[in-house]
Amino acid sequence: MGTSEVHVLSASGVLPGPQIDNAALARRFGMPAAFEQWIDAFVGTSGRHLVVDLESGQATATLADLAAQAGAEALRSAGLGPQDVDLLVMATATPDKLMPATVTMVADRLGIDQVPAYQLQSGCTGAVQALQVAEGLLRCADHRTALVIGGDVCAKHLDVGLDLAAMPPGQLVNVVLFGDGAGAAVLGTRPGPGSAVLRRTLVRLVGLGRAPAQTVEWFGLADRLADLPAGSEDYKAIEQHVPGMADEVFAELLDELDWKKSEVDYLLPPQLSGTMTRRITERLSVSGAREISCVAETGNTANALPFFQLERLLPRMVEGDRAVGVTIESSKWIKAGFALEKQ
Amino acid sequence: MGTSEVHVLSASGVLPGPQIDNAALARRFGMPAAFEQWIDAFVGTSGRHLVVDLESGQATATLADLAAQAGAEALRSAGLGPQDVDLLVMATATPDKLMPATVTMVADRLGIDQVPAYQLQSGCTGAVQALQVAEGLLRCADHRTALVIGGDVCAKHLDVGLDLAAMPPGQLVNVVLFGDGAGAAVLGTRPGPGSAVLRRTLVRLVGLGRAPAQTVEWFGLADRLADLPAGSEDYKAIEQHVPGMADEVFAELLDELDWKKSEVDYLLPPQLSGTMTRRITERLSVSGAREISCVAETGNTANALPFFQLERLLPRMVEGDRAVGVTIESSKWIKAGFALEKQ
Repeated sequence: MGTSEVHVLSASGVLPGPQIDNAALARRFGMPAAFEQWIDAFVGTSGRHLVVDLESGQATATLADLAAQAGAEALRSAGLGPQDVDLLVMATATPDKLMPATVTMVADRLGIDQVPAYQLQSGCTGAVQALQVAEGLLRCADHRTALVIGGDVCAKHLDVGLDLAAMPPGQLVNVVLFGDGAGAAVLGTRPGPGSAVLRRTLVRLVGLGRAPAQTVEWFGLADRLADLPAGSEDYKAIEQHVPGMADEVFAELLDELDWKKSEVDYLLPPQLSGTMTRRITERLSVSGAREISCVAETGNTANALPFFQLERLLPRMVEGDRAVGVTIESSKWIKAGFALEKQ
Repeated sequence: MGTSEVHVLSASGVLPGPQIDNAALARRFGMPAAFEQWIDAFVGTSGRHLVVDLESGQATATLADLAAQAGAEALRSAGLGPQDVDLLVMATATPDKLMPATVTMVADRLGIDQVPAYQLQSGCTGAVQALQVAEGLLRCADHRTALVIGGDVCAKHLDVGLDLAAMPPGQLVNVVLFGDGAGAAVLGTRPGPGSAVLRRTLVRLVGLGRAPAQTVEWFGLADRLADLPAGSEDYKAIEQHVPGMADEVFAELLDELDWKKSEVDYLLPPQLSGTMTRRITERLSVSGAREISCVAETGNTANALPFFQLERLLPRMVEGDRAVGVTIESSKWIKAGFALEKQ
């Protein structure tokens, strides 16, 4: 029973539709040029992809659509089929329905059956939570191959009838910060062509006595007509705490692995926004490491984002390369990270 | 690394407010006596507890409230405190919010911090999914103690302004079938007073090509005013398939453990409703086993229910006793079960 090493065999990322740049967003919502300048200066995100047609407000894809596509691509790129998958773990903050869990719909699309399928309700650390659950169960159960998926879509949250001009910046930032997408990775107990060893995952709740900096509500039949806020963010708290928490995760992973900072070849920093990622990366100052970031082009795709980074990372790694990824969840404050090494 | 045995050290169940019997429900919604007779004959559930005040429609408790109470009771009964918990896993179909995950709010109430905390989005097999994730991670990681929680509340779904008399039976049954509650269990790598060994957990998605028999929607800012159904059930499919699936899970667990049917001392059957549970138990016909059921008194509390059964089971078990639990999720068809043995 059990194995000592878990390998990341492949990773994939899927974005819906064409990129919507800041000019297109400004045009659609009748915002002035200052809006675009504000996004550039304070958010640092040049575009995002959405599952909502901005003209009609209609959804063009579901989370299950994107997640199934990401899962299929990751399997194909690992040279595996649905019958090889022993375990399916998915993470999202925006499931298509409460029931069935979206992961079961994704399994159906992929032809995966007769295996455990878990769906984690999670924010920006969800991808690492899913990697950790899969890693743990691969290490100790009889499973050999796990498909791990993360994704989020805004279809139920984004009201295209909103008057952006009337919104305070604290709410407006949500419209420009997030993007839709799904990503996936295949983990296995044996190496494959192009794989890297998953040396460590870290997930640690650090929310004790701290107010959540991000809340997202859902409504049911009984309360959907009530005049309730759909969510709130405390970006000041996020800006204040996330860079230091990223530092801590990075240091802790190195410490646990007995790696030196100078031995890290690739850094996958948190992807809150282009601006925040730049700030975090500067503070981490891992001068010898190449940064793998994509949030400035994709928007913050939350549970999907680390898979986009892994997709870019894997083909670049050569023997002996080491990579460290960090994600921070500000909802109720979770630190997370992972470390890969190419053998 | 790792341990061979995982022990269930304690279990607890928490129900909100006083029991609401069928007469009270009929009175509140202005239903005739035939309504009560229908519930008795076809549902077989005599009462349920709800977090909604039926007069005012106001919520009297959140899922976090019930889950924290269940967690505290399970820890107390295991003789442990929050600082002993290395891992927190929670399962629910009805989180209080999408973010933060309710599990992080529960951790805060209990004083649990600095550990991984996972929340599974799941229906009637959620408790077993959470037990399996905790069991797996206890077996292979450095964790020694896991707190596992399951619960559901109807606050966002139950509209007390509904005209029950105008509802078709297929929707009416939802109002009488479900109840609110939370349960918890403490799992550890060492035995304790009153503990039993968790010999096996089984979670298997069997939804390939099959339509979900239960769907539950959630609404966001963008679609909450749309005229959409909040969910649907196919009780015919549930009645048709669940008993046979329960048979399969039971047989499979015995087979994997090399246990004979005559060696099972306690049976914890699926708890869909009083009537369905009776039918399933008759079909399983484990004549030597004592049945542990509570759905007729508590209503179907979904993710909480197996913990209520465990709470009743543990103090009854004596050395050598064997118990088998079965749960079936009809949303997109998941088979699940677990087996305990008292050493």
